[in-house]
Amino acid sequence: MALIVQKYGGTSVGDIGRIKNVARKAIAAQREGHKVVVVVSAMSGETNRLLKLVGELTERPNEREQDVVVATGEQVTIGLTAIALGAAGGRARSFMGHQCRIVTDSTFSKARIKRIDADAIYASLDRAEIAVIAGFQGVDEDGNITTLGRGGSDTTAVAIAAAIKADACEIYTDVDGVYTTDPNVCRAARKLDRVSYEEMLELASVGAKVLQIRSVELAMKYQVPLWVKSSFTDDPGTLVCEEDAAMEDVLVSGVALDRNEVRVSISRVPDAPGVAARIFGALDQKAISVDVIVQAPPVDGKTDLTFTVGKADLVKTKDVIDHLVPEIQAGGVQVDEECCKVSIVGVGMRTHSGVAARMFKTLYKEGINILAISTSEIRVSCLIPPKYAELAVRALHTEFGLDQAA
Amino acid sequence: MALIVQKYGGTSVGDIGRIKNVARKAIAAQREGHKVVVVVSAMSGETNRLLKLVGELTERPNEREQDVVVATGEQVTIGLTAIALGAAGGRARSFMGHQCRIVTDSTFSKARIKRIDADAIYASLDRAEIAVIAGFQGVDEDGNITTLGRGGSDTTAVAIAAAIKADACEIYTDVDGVYTTDPNVCRAARKLDRVSYEEMLELASVGAKVLQIRSVELAMKYQVPLWVKSSFTDDPGTLVCEEDAAMEDVLVSGVALDRNEVRVSISRVPDAPGVAARIFGALDQKAISVDVIVQAPPVDGKTDLTFTVGKADLVKTKDVIDHLVPEIQAGGVQVDEECCKVSIVGVGMRTHSGVAARMFKTLYKEGINILAISTSEIRVSCLIPPKYAELAVRALHTEFGLDQAA
Repeated sequence: MALIVQKYGGTSVGDIGRIKNVARKAIAAQREGHKVVVVVSAMSGETNRLLKLVGELTERPNEREQDVVVATGEQVTIGLTAIALGAAGGRARSFMGHQCRIVTDSTFSKARIKRIDADAIYASLDRAEIAVIAGFQGVDEDGNITTLGRGGSDTTAVAIAAAIKADACEIYTDVDGVYTTDPNVCRAARKLDRVSYEEMLELASVGAKVLQIRSVELAMKYQVPLWVKSSFTDDPGTLVCEEDAAMEDVLVSGVALDRNEVRVSISRVPDAPGVAARIFGALDQKAISVDVIVQAPPVDGKTDLTFTVGKADLVKTKDVIDHLVPEIQAGGVQVDEECCKVSIVGVGMRTHSGVAARMFKTLYKEGINILAISTSEIRVSCLIPPKYAELAVRALHTEFGLDQAA
Repeated sequence: MALIVQKYGGTSVGDIGRIKNVARKAIAAQREGHKVVVVVSAMSGETNRLLKLVGELTERPNEREQDVVVATGEQVTIGLTAIALGAAGGRARSFMGHQCRIVTDSTFSKARIKRIDADAIYASLDRAEIAVIAGFQGVDEDGNITTLGRGGSDTTAVAIAAAIKADACEIYTDVDGVYTTDPNVCRAARKLDRVSYEEMLELASVGAKVLQIRSVELAMKYQVPLWVKSSFTDDPGTLVCEEDAAMEDVLVSGVALDRNEVRVSISRVPDAPGVAARIFGALDQKAISVDVIVQAPPVDGKTDLTFTVGKADLVKTKDVIDHLVPEIQAGGVQVDEECCKVSIVGVGMRTHSGVAARMFKTLYKEGINILAISTSEIRVSCLIPPKYAELAVRALHTEFGLDQAA
């Protein structure tokens, strides 16, 4: 007998038929002898519907009140799911964030979980109920409703799994696992049976949208075994877990593509101490995350500085840089909206050398120019012209032996 | 300076434009120097949309969970209303039932309010906020979400007004007050400036749908002055309040029509002690309210028993009676779906005699046959064939001097 947290995303609860399907899956797990907690998102489209109502009122809504509105999406789903479980012969009880005390800080719309009342959940499980918990929402110390930000239901599920010491957290979605790369880009993409937390983090941060980064971080921190599964098949899915020796034998686990970055170049930046700190400090103050940073060797006491930011932050970034350029007496700014990042990820890189060189050579052989490079211990990313995106992914996928047997 | 509770129904918050209108009205009252609490319903159509989702799952939903689902309707409205108030330059804070502790019993879907935490509301008002409170919902002693039943937002508003000792409770709706009768039936109908709690109760119970009966009972019990006003005009509306001497001078305050009753006749019921108790006890056990009851004088130890029930209870009533008829050895049952009840209401009846006789005579003059009669201290009701409904209302309206000056 195991203690399992199952999380179902928006498409998995997108209509009444699918909610009935969730009920069947949860009851099946319970009949196998497991204790089951279900975490659900809002029905697909619902959060956007609610945000649209808010948007019709004002562009700058009070964030406390916006959270009150959007938290209803998950509340509807827990009620419906508990009703579906009851109608299918199960016992169930729904919990909102404030009922199983998912206590967060007071950062409305992107709150962080501080603690969870495991006893309320244990008590429900001890009554042989399936506990159905609203994802995405919590309550602060003063009893205000908070939400965790987009994709927050994954985080709720992992946090609950950690709090109740679950044996596994199963994330049900509309794909049947984590793939070596996007199957829409590369038909040879293969589903991974296992992937390490760190690889998953790198894959998530470079554009594989299966899991929310915070939920993977949390799973790694609390050693929660995380399964990515499909709501619509019985495929075992992918296990995200601790790295082990076998994983290190694999040089590259996945190839990721991110089309959401924009390259910004500042020309003729004075090569003086503190200038880079000033630029990136100003961006940080506006909560703009910067990714790849490349600084050219200085010529005549001036250097060119290139970095990437998310497309969504482009307007804010321009504001900041346009102010700074005259202040720091730089030459000018160039924004290259056409830009894409291809990355290879694998814990095997730690113990094997030459991986980056092989990547560059592969891109070179295909005639792809590399605009900038960044690396971590288990990742190499190259900025390339976007027209080569698919070609680069397929070439790297083949080069590192990821293609599935034909 | 006064302390005012304003309640806005579903049509008054039916879209974003109307929610902005609510914000304007509440801020206007605050700028006049009043402390303002706003109670809102779900946006019109929303509760039905949610119940439809539940209905697609099962005909017999778990009632605790159904309350979790439908309570979201009001939650969305409080968030949107608070955002609208903020956007219009006001200060506001929303409260769900569990946040200002509207504690109810645990009768899901028709819970009754036990107490309210006035301090939470006072604290909000002391911060110069407009407190925006979700109608229709509460929380039981165990922290479960409850709802108060259809029209429960009126009850919430009056209960809050009583708890915080408000100077007035204003019920905003899509009509501009309480009328002497339905203006759609009788063009001469006149808006009442004042009506007593007891008259309002009788009018509400016989089909004038402006206010929910429980809210009027509560207002009477706690002496809360209740205004019925239109959201869409600045008309002062109708004040529902304590009876005073001037009201007694008016013989009849209103004429009400109820088309939702069905007449059930049981023939040849044994005229023995306990038989009537058995019949009405069985109906009561199924929570069926019985209205007009007429028992004919017994012939040969048998009597005919006629009563009315709401149309919605007809199926349940038939089940009960069909079982009972052979048990009590009665002759048979006849259900007359075509039936309507016309009533005259007025506190002046207490001190004036002959009102009922004048009513019967008026109906007789129009050739209307009376099928059954029931009375209270301040009301006379007649069951008549439905084809005469409008004629009866207009004739009585004229007879008792209610027609407005042409």
